[in-house]
Amino acid sequence: MEKPQINVLRQTYGFDDVSIVPGNVTINPDQTNVSLKIGDIVFNIPIIAAAMDAVTDVNFATLMSKTGGLAVLNIEGVYTKYENPKAVLEEIAQASDSDMTGILQRVYSEPIKDELIARRIKEVKESGAICAVSVTPANTKRLAPVITESGADILVVQSTVTTARHISKSYHGLVFSELCRMVNIPVVVGNCVSYSTCLELMRTGVSGILVGVGPGAACTSRQVLGIGVPQITSTMDCAAAREAYLTETGRYVPIITDGGFRCGGDLCKAIAAGADGVMIGSIFAQTKEAPGKGYHWGMSTPHLALPRGTRIKVGIRGTLEQVLFGPSSVTDGSQNLVGALRVAMGMCGAFNIREMQQAELVLAPSITTEGKHWQLARL
Amino acid sequence: MEKPQINVLRQTYGFDDVSIVPGNVTINPDQTNVSLKIGDIVFNIPIIAAAMDAVTDVNFATLMSKTGGLAVLNIEGVYTKYENPKAVLEEIAQASDSDMTGILQRVYSEPIKDELIARRIKEVKESGAICAVSVTPANTKRLAPVITESGADILVVQSTVTTARHISKSYHGLVFSELCRMVNIPVVVGNCVSYSTCLELMRTGVSGILVGVGPGAACTSRQVLGIGVPQITSTMDCAAAREAYLTETGRYVPIITDGGFRCGGDLCKAIAAGADGVMIGSIFAQTKEAPGKGYHWGMSTPHLALPRGTRIKVGIRGTLEQVLFGPSSVTDGSQNLVGALRVAMGMCGAFNIREMQQAELVLAPSITTEGKHWQLARL
Amino acid sequence: MEKPQINVLRQTYGFDDVSIVPGNVTINPDQTNVSLKIGDIVFNIPIIAAAMDAVTDVNFATLMSKTGGLAVLNIEGVYTKYENPKAVLEEIAQASDSDMTGILQRVYSEPIKDELIARRIKEVKESGAICAVSVTPANTKRLAPVITESGADILVVQSTVTTARHISKSYHGLVFSELCRMVNIPVVVGNCVSYSTCLELMRTGVSGILVGVGPGAACTSRQVLGIGVPQITSTMDCAAAREAYLTETGRYVPIITDGGFRCGGDLCKAIAAGADGVMIGSIFAQTKEAPGKGYHWGMSTPHLALPRGTRIKVGIRGTLEQVLFGPSSVTDGSQNLVGALRVAMGMCGAFNIREMQQAELVLAPSITTEGKHWQLARL
Amino acid sequence: MEKPQINVLRQTYGFDDVSIVPGNVTINPDQTNVSLKIGDIVFNIPIIAAAMDAVTDVNFATLMSKTGGLAVLNIEGVYTKYENPKAVLEEIAQASDSDMTGILQRVYSEPIKDELIARRIKEVKESGAICAVSVTPANTKRLAPVITESGADILVVQSTVTTARHISKSYHGLVFSELCRMVNIPVVVGNCVSYSTCLELMRTGVSGILVGVGPGAACTSRQVLGIGVPQITSTMDCAAAREAYLTETGRYVPIITDGGFRCGGDLCKAIAAGADGVMIGSIFAQTKEAPGKGYHWGMSTPHLALPRGTRIKVGIRGTLEQVLFGPSSVTDGSQNLVGALRVAMGMCGAFNIREMQQAELVLAPSITTEGKHWQLARL
Repeated sequence: MEKPQINVLRQTYGFDDVSIVPGNVTINPDQTNVSLKIGDIVFNIPIIAAAMDAVTDVNFATLMSKTGGLAVLNIEGVYTKYENPKAVLEEIAQASDSDMTGILQRVYSEPIKDELIARRIKEVKESGAICAVSVTPANTKRLAPVITESGADILVVQSTVTTARHISKSYHGLVFSELCRMVNIPVVVGNCVSYSTCLELMRTGVSGILVGVGPGAACTSRQVLGIGVPQITSTMDCAAAREAYLTETGRYVPIITDGGFRCGGDLCKAIAAGADGVMIGSIFAQTKEAPGKGYHWGMSTPHLALPRGTRIKVGIRGTLEQVLFGPSSVTDGSQNLVGALRVAMGMCGAFNIREMQQAELVLAPSITTEGKHWQLARL
Repeated sequence: MEKPQINVLRQTYGFDDVSIVPGNVTINPDQTNVSLKIGDIVFNIPIIAAAMDAVTDVNFATLMSKTGGLAVLNIEGVYTKYENPKAVLEEIAQASDSDMTGILQRVYSEPIKDELIARRIKEVKESGAICAVSVTPANTKRLAPVITESGADILVVQSTVTTARHISKSYHGLVFSELCRMVNIPVVVGNCVSYSTCLELMRTGVSGILVGVGPGAACTSRQVLGIGVPQITSTMDCAAAREAYLTETGRYVPIITDGGFRCGGDLCKAIAAGADGVMIGSIFAQTKEAPGKGYHWGMSTPHLALPRGTRIKVGIRGTLEQVLFGPSSVTDGSQNLVGALRVAMGMCGAFNIREMQQAELVLAPSITTEGKHWQLARL
Repeated sequence: MEKPQINVLRQTYGFDDVSIVPGNVTINPDQTNVSLKIGDIVFNIPIIAAAMDAVTDVNFATLMSKTGGLAVLNIEGVYTKYENPKAVLEEIAQASDSDMTGILQRVYSEPIKDELIARRIKEVKESGAICAVSVTPANTKRLAPVITESGADILVVQSTVTTARHISKSYHGLVFSELCRMVNIPVVVGNCVSYSTCLELMRTGVSGILVGVGPGAACTSRQVLGIGVPQITSTMDCAAAREAYLTETGRYVPIITDGGFRCGGDLCKAIAAGADGVMIGSIFAQTKEAPGKGYHWGMSTPHLALPRGTRIKVGIRGTLEQVLFGPSSVTDGSQNLVGALRVAMGMCGAFNIREMQQAELVLAPSITTEGKHWQLARL
Repeated sequence: MEKPQINVLRQTYGFDDVSIVPGNVTINPDQTNVSLKIGDIVFNIPIIAAAMDAVTDVNFATLMSKTGGLAVLNIEGVYTKYENPKAVLEEIAQASDSDMTGILQRVYSEPIKDELIARRIKEVKESGAICAVSVTPANTKRLAPVITESGADILVVQSTVTTARHISKSYHGLVFSELCRMVNIPVVVGNCVSYSTCLELMRTGVSGILVGVGPGAACTSRQVLGIGVPQITSTMDCAAAREAYLTETGRYVPIITDGGFRCGGDLCKAIAAGADGVMIGSIFAQTKEAPGKGYHWGMSTPHLALPRGTRIKVGIRGTLEQVLFGPSSVTDGSQNLVGALRVAMGMCGAFNIREMQQAELVLAPSITTEGKHWQLARL
């Protein structure tokens, strides 16, 4: 009987599929260095708050910078569309589940004001913080001048999927190599998930890559579009591209895994898979300082024709200080992320992030299965 | 110790097992072409409504044709058994769960009326729509004349499993090559799931193949019979047969993945697995225009001795326009299917369906696991 | 760094892991032959009711024989311990969940009466039925004379795990080759799960092998002991032993997959994996004719020190006739098992069981995942 | 297109992933020997109660020794911090879920009293029991003198991850070879999970290895830190190290799998994977004799900055005698662990633990899936 050629599909992995193996040498956690460098800017902790309206406003950006990390302000969201974004955030928080998509669609149809972009950047800079802002590729060329003139330190160009080669009828394609020359600040680009796209983007001269399509808690891209690669595999592939590019050019471009984090364990796994830093949304949306008031939603959620996200109620569970440095009042791993990373690095004998990228990952059955036994007993 | 030869079973995959990897080049969604060709008839969208009584009546067939797609009318169901099918549909919708199987068995024991076949076809044609009708293999030879004489444009011969070689004592086997010569319209045949069966069917001269055994939401074939192949693998195998047949003859026979779709992501994955089009049941049963009134049932459900399906309550969630083109009022991917396909094609840099068939699929842990975390938090 | 040799563990499969691929030729179900032969006795259907007290009493054995199948009477259970087993069964049915284990332990501590063994066998024979009885290996030599003298047609020697070589201090080991010569009727032995044990047992001269350790619905062997092999793999391995033995000797010894069946699909899969017949417990316990009154329990459940089973409430869902031949009033596959097998064989183009053993099995994601979507929607 | 090197991650396995295959020879359970030897001390049963405050107090240690097993007293917990630990245990048992982490953190911040260490050890010894105590690496050198002087028989040095090479700024690293020479009693060290770490630890001269990172019911290390290896793989790897070390030196160092056990099946699987003994926490916490009063918590739970555990309500389900030797009043495998091990060894034809380590393990779908069917039916 005739037979087709068998197409072998590649297996990919997410956070729940892997676990870190402790090392043969252990070190004390207080001896670890967890810093991250983007361009010439060094951050003491490798954690970046996502460019999502429920997470990063001017105040949150200021606070994150003080902790040694970074927060990215989305300048195509409510903060640059509205003089008074608080009233808008309040309306979103109070919307019923059924009205929510409609309200988000209306709120986000308001145009962006250049004047507000300048004002928000200046508010962040006046506090002494590092200011990073994000734009979508379609608006980058138009908004780049006001962003740089207002004093932003890092420019993030971000969409669901970004490549070095985009074909469009409606606007002249953004060329990242030109952008990097034009703006005088580090450009971080994403998101991407594959070796070849990551390598092409690095060759344009950008200073950082965001990794991750489809994994976020507030994102339904995989359900709506069928598109997405789990974070461990995408991080491993892009880390391989970083090493290839480093060998090729001698330049080190950090990769930042973006989305899908629920606990310190996920963060440690991303680093062990090869990340230099992580971008986190929903865990920060749970802090007292976050503007989302216990809610969180993705930036594709308000899309008019094809919303790809949901507003989720995440609740308010602690302070930003607790989430990053503890002390933790919970045992689910969502607090003291930096402490967890240092302890894990100690167990793997890793003095810094670069060494932690060498920790062994194994495929391991999800922790959920084993916990179920006792959860059932408690019902 | 003596050991048996180890039989290695082939691994197969369904929608939940795979994900699409974005491409190295992206294009704007408005530059994509999503048309499907069956015989000489071109459809602007590659979506066909299933030949199921809760989905396609004369009115629905008319509406689907206007959107650029197609709906297939089952001419062995209530529409050709009853002058007034509305009363029957009402009875099914109002049946209790326990009475349901018995009521369906009684309703479907009514004989088919040739006169009603002719009338239904003419009703569709009078609206200006393309008219496609489906029959089972056992009835095809008897009903083919009235179907063609009444003006149908496409003949679908469909049963749970259809092969080019069927052995029966009770009726003279249907020979598809004779049927194709006899009727003067494109013949679409199914369902099949394997490379060799698909290739044999194409060699009989048919103009399209339906792919899928066991995956539908209203179908319990796999539970009752143990038979079925998940849709990604069956689509990949039949697409391989299509390519082999194309090389062999120069003739391109489209394959249409039929059943199991729950969201736009599933549709995109079927195309990326090699399908030219999709046949959808339950998502259409949820529209305001569907005759099922928020219920859906499989065509094997009323089987007298061995019912293989359940009536499921799908609810009414939007209009046919919303399901196909949006704007979407939901974020679960069940609306704006065409928009989702165009966006996914854009992310893969695919200008048309033929290019989208080349997108990379990977094995990826189901989205369900990752979502669970927040769903639990919401309880 | 030093590394251990990696031990690769063999992957095994159960019913939920596999699916049957339809064939390239299909036949009408009414042309299939589903008979099973044990020794010289031919059964019209390949289905045997388990030697469990909630399933097979004298009446049930009589009814099963009339349908063309077989039921095995456990002669170490309530029917040979009690003059009036009905009162005992009533007590078990009415026990609370917390009292149940204690009640079963007390009920089953009653000694077996030889006189009742003889009486039960004669009751079955007087009805004109084929009489099969089961004993445990430890009691076989003592009870074999009364069993054969009373006229039993088939002797089943059954324990959780049976091998051709058992070492015991307390009783002189049972030698199956001696037993086969001693009794003048077919001896069926089990349970086993591996190629080598199955082959050794066949070489002792037995007439049938029961396959399955740990899969039954009323059995918790795998949880209590960690021991068990899923039914598809154990059936495939034992079928390979049957073929090797057939080649070696020319004698065909049927293998009967015992335990874990929930629907017709499971039965069809067992045959496709290589079984000649199946032994079913819980589905029969659900019939009106079963003595368990809607309850079911394993024969290891009453074990005094180490109970390995639970009493489960299975309910009463239909008649024995419906379960075997339909018409089915349910759509979950638990009725019309013979009809389901014939339809599946038709879809695979198999005229008899021997041909159905050649049907292709593939690994397929469980049906449960796909169904979940709609079950959630119904909540 | 350029491609990365594909990193193949090793697959690991836990209890739920595997099952034991019965042997070709079976023996009677009463012929099995299940003893375990640590240093020169022989234990009649291979089961050790964990050094957790909810499991082992002076009384429990005494009772376990009488059964032929062992219990390890944690001398950095409530028993050496408080004159009257009962009041403290009462407070923990009565704490609400929300207050629990805070109360544990306060209770455990009390300093250890050397005087109480001496008293607890003497209390155990006065009962005639074998006395084993556990310390963390950081405190070992300081506490070793009082431990040995008070007459302890076995010293357990235990932390989440222990290696032969630890680097610390704050205390001079513990050198196990020095410790073994200094104390005159067997030293057991852990926990570790990999071949190379286990081999290095054995080479320091220790008398036993604890295996397991992350699997315990009261432990959330994997969630918080991302670190952990499932128990079957870690046991297989450390057993391979034991064999390598035995070949290298002629000395046999037992490995004890620690954590994650829920039933007798898990215990049998650990032995079949290569363990010489098991350390059990939560199952013992369920006994009437355990000091935890129906609650259980991990020793990392009270960590001030980074709690890695939860207090779980395990309930009180039977006596220690029942858990070890039956008779079992439950059918879930959590009672008569020794009986279960003997029965499983009988089914595998293993006369002793060393032979049971040779039993075949296979990968098998979890029992949970198959049980679900009936659990659903019961709702």
